[in-house]
Amino acid sequence: MIRIGVIGYGYWGPNLVRNFAETPGLTVAGVADLDPKKLEIVQKRFPGVETTSRFQDLLENKDIDAIAIATPVNSHFELGMAALKAGKHVWLEKPMTETAEQARKLINEAEKRKLVLIVDHTFIYTGAVRKMADLVKSGELGRIHYYDSTRINLGLFQRDANVIADLAVHDFSILDYLLGEQPVAVSAVGTNHFPHTPENLAYITLFYDSGMIAHINVSWLAPVKLRQILIGGSKKMIIYDDLEPSEKIKIYDKGVNFTDDPQKIYEMRVGYRTGDMWAPQLDSSEALRVEGEHFVDCIENGKTPQTSGSLGLRVVELIEAATRSMNEHGRSVEINGSTMYQGRRVA
Amino acid sequence: MIRIGVIGYGYWGPNLVRNFAETPGLTVAGVADLDPKKLEIVQKRFPGVETTSRFQDLLENKDIDAIAIATPVNSHFELGMAALKAGKHVWLEKPMTETAEQARKLINEAEKRKLVLIVDHTFIYTGAVRKMADLVKSGELGRIHYYDSTRINLGLFQRDANVIADLAVHDFSILDYLLGEQPVAVSAVGTNHFPHTPENLAYITLFYDSGMIAHINVSWLAPVKLRQILIGGSKKMIIYDDLEPSEKIKIYDKGVNFTDDPQKIYEMRVGYRTGDMWAPQLDSSEALRVEGEHFVDCIENGKTPQTSGSLGLRVVELIEAATRSMNEHGRSVEINGSTMYQGRRVA
Amino acid sequence: MIRIGVIGYGYWGPNLVRNFAETPGLTVAGVADLDPKKLEIVQKRFPGVETTSRFQDLLENKDIDAIAIATPVNSHFELGMAALKAGKHVWLEKPMTETAEQARKLINEAEKRKLVLIVDHTFIYTGAVRKMADLVKSGELGRIHYYDSTRINLGLFQRDANVIADLAVHDFSILDYLLGEQPVAVSAVGTNHFPHTPENLAYITLFYDSGMIAHINVSWLAPVKLRQILIGGSKKMIIYDDLEPSEKIKIYDKGVNFTDDPQKIYEMRVGYRTGDMWAPQLDSSEALRVEGEHFVDCIENGKTPQTSGSLGLRVVELIEAATRSMNEHGRSVEINGSTMYQGRRVA
Amino acid sequence: MIRIGVIGYGYWGPNLVRNFAETPGLTVAGVADLDPKKLEIVQKRFPGVETTSRFQDLLENKDIDAIAIATPVNSHFELGMAALKAGKHVWLEKPMTETAEQARKLINEAEKRKLVLIVDHTFIYTGAVRKMADLVKSGELGRIHYYDSTRINLGLFQRDANVIADLAVHDFSILDYLLGEQPVAVSAVGTNHFPHTPENLAYITLFYDSGMIAHINVSWLAPVKLRQILIGGSKKMIIYDDLEPSEKIKIYDKGVNFTDDPQKIYEMRVGYRTGDMWAPQLDSSEALRVEGEHFVDCIENGKTPQTSGSLGLRVVELIEAATRSMNEHGRSVEINGSTMYQGRRVA
Repeated sequence: MIRIGVIGYGYWGPNLVRNFAETPGLTVAGVADLDPKKLEIVQKRFPGVETTSRFQDLLENKDIDAIAIATPVNSHFELGMAALKAGKHVWLEKPMTETAEQARKLINEAEKRKLVLIVDHTFIYTGAVRKMADLVKSGELGRIHYYDSTRINLGLFQRDANVIADLAVHDFSILDYLLGEQPVAVSAVGTNHFPHTPENLAYITLFYDSGMIAHINVSWLAPVKLRQILIGGSKKMIIYDDLEPSEKIKIYDKGVNFTDDPQKIYEMRVGYRTGDMWAPQLDSSEALRVEGEHFVDCIENGKTPQTSGSLGLRVVELIEAATRSMNEHGRSVEINGSTMYQGRRVA
Repeated sequence: MIRIGVIGYGYWGPNLVRNFAETPGLTVAGVADLDPKKLEIVQKRFPGVETTSRFQDLLENKDIDAIAIATPVNSHFELGMAALKAGKHVWLEKPMTETAEQARKLINEAEKRKLVLIVDHTFIYTGAVRKMADLVKSGELGRIHYYDSTRINLGLFQRDANVIADLAVHDFSILDYLLGEQPVAVSAVGTNHFPHTPENLAYITLFYDSGMIAHINVSWLAPVKLRQILIGGSKKMIIYDDLEPSEKIKIYDKGVNFTDDPQKIYEMRVGYRTGDMWAPQLDSSEALRVEGEHFVDCIENGKTPQTSGSLGLRVVELIEAATRSMNEHGRSVEINGSTMYQGRRVA
Repeated sequence: MIRIGVIGYGYWGPNLVRNFAETPGLTVAGVADLDPKKLEIVQKRFPGVETTSRFQDLLENKDIDAIAIATPVNSHFELGMAALKAGKHVWLEKPMTETAEQARKLINEAEKRKLVLIVDHTFIYTGAVRKMADLVKSGELGRIHYYDSTRINLGLFQRDANVIADLAVHDFSILDYLLGEQPVAVSAVGTNHFPHTPENLAYITLFYDSGMIAHINVSWLAPVKLRQILIGGSKKMIIYDDLEPSEKIKIYDKGVNFTDDPQKIYEMRVGYRTGDMWAPQLDSSEALRVEGEHFVDCIENGKTPQTSGSLGLRVVELIEAATRSMNEHGRSVEINGSTMYQGRRVA
Repeated sequence: MIRIGVIGYGYWGPNLVRNFAETPGLTVAGVADLDPKKLEIVQKRFPGVETTSRFQDLLENKDIDAIAIATPVNSHFELGMAALKAGKHVWLEKPMTETAEQARKLINEAEKRKLVLIVDHTFIYTGAVRKMADLVKSGELGRIHYYDSTRINLGLFQRDANVIADLAVHDFSILDYLLGEQPVAVSAVGTNHFPHTPENLAYITLFYDSGMIAHINVSWLAPVKLRQILIGGSKKMIIYDDLEPSEKIKIYDKGVNFTDDPQKIYEMRVGYRTGDMWAPQLDSSEALRVEGEHFVDCIENGKTPQTSGSLGLRVVELIEAATRSMNEHGRSVEINGSTMYQGRRVA
């Protein structure tokens, strides 16, 4: 039985505590938060759980094996490093850290101490993303032409992160998981409509050596909530609507037919092919539950998490590059900050 | 009674002929097309209409007052100029011409000869766009923060135009009509997934001095058809879904609430305001019918069309600028090709 | 080439004329209507077509082979009988006649004279209904448990027919075509909310010996338009939404799992099975075109139409029975007016 | 502080406990269930709550003020009566009892002992139903013509109740709350597609003296989940889609226009009126929380619950009448079992 302490009981912390409490192999040993009112809520909902306003109490507790950190991103590095140094396995909320440099230090510290470091990119543990990964990896979609995501809603304005770090972060992790390829450049534009606030709307384009293009539309200022990803392959195409209660994933047997003579594409004007649509049944397990069990498995069996520190780092690198491009009005920024990106660069 | 000849009976020509035939004040006097099979169809559907494979027959016909040109864009300038020189009023399909230079010449020729030149930006004559214009101009939306359009479907691949000229053209005309402001710069990225074909997917961002930002997502390679525009104002927001059979326009009484202290926005984390939604009844007249009647009115009363050559020119300038930016991987391109754009430039 | 005359150019007549004009093997020879303004529209649109206010002119015309009757239902019998007696093949709008007795007389007259009598139950010629029939007949759905249709909208109030004859008529014909079984009893309730008008809202239930149950919800007084049919089989289930632009038919691999012990169904509380959903591509040919070509084929090759007088008669019998039940507040009415219904009766 | 004990921790019990635990003024003092595994879950989740397999322990506990009963309906009467006799206020799940006779006895017992008896018709406490009640009662809809509900899904098959008692029960309570009028007769048809199981599909029609008609379509055997109510008034109409995440209620300014001459309705063929649609913002408080606070208020201040035993009784009477009609193949059954129904009877 892994005993876990949770630091931060704000927006996401309650979900962690509720799920950890019901995950086989996990026990919530304590919750730390600076706000005494939040601790009162914990006591009412989970009378058996220790609460404290000092996160150090959790780190110093010898009975605690792991620490989950659900605080604002600007404290991730400090808290994560302290937890690792206290010999705890670490569950870090996304984005992993404010800078890639911080992420690399956490990865090194965890490796040195043989501790598990998982980054909570929850989407990777959903039935929908796993089904899409199966479809991409099995070749059923053919060559991937594009990935197009719309992730908009009204609020919540963040204090310490722009809309890229808040929302596009999900697409960065999904793209990393789906494809065996890293982008070589990114171009982003965005704006803040209110003075002295982070950008609340952004459009990000990722370029890949293969010709694949990814586009992400994120906003905190939309009248409706949309969570929609289109993936276009040479054989089939996917629509993933995360707000659909069922049939989140629809696979279209549609595409463009080719003859040997490429001129034929437009001579015929209608060179496309349409066929059936298919919505596979998805694993409906709650993603946080799956992720919690995976965390236990990694700790007990020395495995590397599917959302490892390395994946978390690559996501932070993309946030940094996209934010830089946005600050320079969409100038294309190469992604080569680390040796893990190979291949030809775009001009 | 205005007698009109139609050149081109391909994709759009049949719609023109059918609508002109039923528009009060208009009579279809002839149809020209190079394809004899298309002329046979005209004869079967409209037994009273003269058909010819020589467009010159229509220009030389003294009984014809106006010429509608529904051919590929690369013939618009030549045919339009010939029709004007033959003393005919001209109805030109969109985009008006391949180059801004050509558009300017047509405008000058029409002015010199006191002939009406209308560009068929059909959307401007729909009840939905007119309702949105009312809402913008009356101030009901407040200050406009953004315009975000998704205009995607499978096919039709064009031979002589990229997806910007084919689809984003609609947004360029709608933006021009809705706002009293021209963009100062454009950034576009796009790609062609098949060799030797025009770009089939593009993302275009327009920057405005006021801080307004417009984004347009266009594609010929999507598994589903979407026609959705979001407009975010400081007071209210709009969703316009052109595929909705009714309730195309929804107006949301949602926004962000401000206190005197801007820090409050994110301190509260939830600084937004939600209210009712309202879907006004729209004028459901067919847009082409409205436009046809407007064309008659302009000819008979010497008026300038709402979709004049000048509007058509500004749209062509945007297509040129966006295509240039796309060819340079998203570099921000200033829009100052003509004296009609004023104001501060973006860096 | 079959030359056809059309009587009635009101709501549906223009669709007939437009389609017949473009159907290979058919020529529109004349149109009769009492309203001279409607005939003017025909003359403007189809200058070659003879128009007349006397339907007798069409019947007496030796060059005319067939007559289509698109007038109010109370004139169907008289006009249909006159056309048959004039030796013309007959295309009759739905519902076929006001009474089953009239329908039987028309069937007999057509048989005696070896003339084709087709009833325009257009839905039977759509790709959607044909796909559903394939699925039912191939056994892919398993045993059919229920058919549940919602067919509601605002208006159009009819003068000479209640909402059953106007809207449920579609379901009666679809049920007849899909199933190899006739209902044995019908129960209907309905109401007219306005004095001296036909019922504008009705709920009809059809009972079948097999245990199948069909329910039809029709209304002229709904704020939105719905056209939705659910078909539940023991193996699979269908949703047919006729207002969906694509994916009209969705097939769900869902049902109830059985063990040998029927008690298990509710002991487990969750005895159902869920699987993939599948939306097959449908034939998108226009139904009226398909039906027109079928009419020509029946005339030229002596075939019986798929929507024959017999099917039309069975539909009229259901309208009569359902209306009788509705007048008696839902009393179950047996359907045994003709020898074509066999089998056990419900109590 | 009201101390409450909960009997039954099956499907609904956990929702009650979770909500009661967080409702101001309520404390969960104990949970009883026959299944020790369920009690273990309670102990893990709520270490401070007493658990027992004997419901009598809760009744005998002097510190407990109120008892919530969330067991199968066939135990409601016995448990409810025992709780009242032990001097406890009672919260009863719906439907209140198996028979109207039992419901009357509980009402009398509660009145005699001055105890609060609330029936958990949760929908009455939702923002959506309350908004609809406001619209009906304020006269904004005009005269109510019809109520049409579709409440279908796949499973859950019940052991001890048919689909009317399981699903139509919601509509019976909503109708009672919305209208100031009781139905005078009911006609229902339904079927069980599997031997030895309760009816899994039913269609119920309620008749009212005012001419209002209510229809309810319920099923456990549908491939998709629908929760949709249409209410048609003489001035406006409502669609309430409970599965919409926002905009659950849409109000249509549509109807039928009248002239003094009723013949005009169909002479014009289009006698209807269309206008704007409006989706009001709804109170999004969780209904169970609102209901819990209301229960506390009734206990502390001697008020009668909005979902009182009397409302619960009228709902049970409707279930009984509808089930009787269904067993008699749709025969219209009068509702006059109690003196609370007045007015003219239908034939």
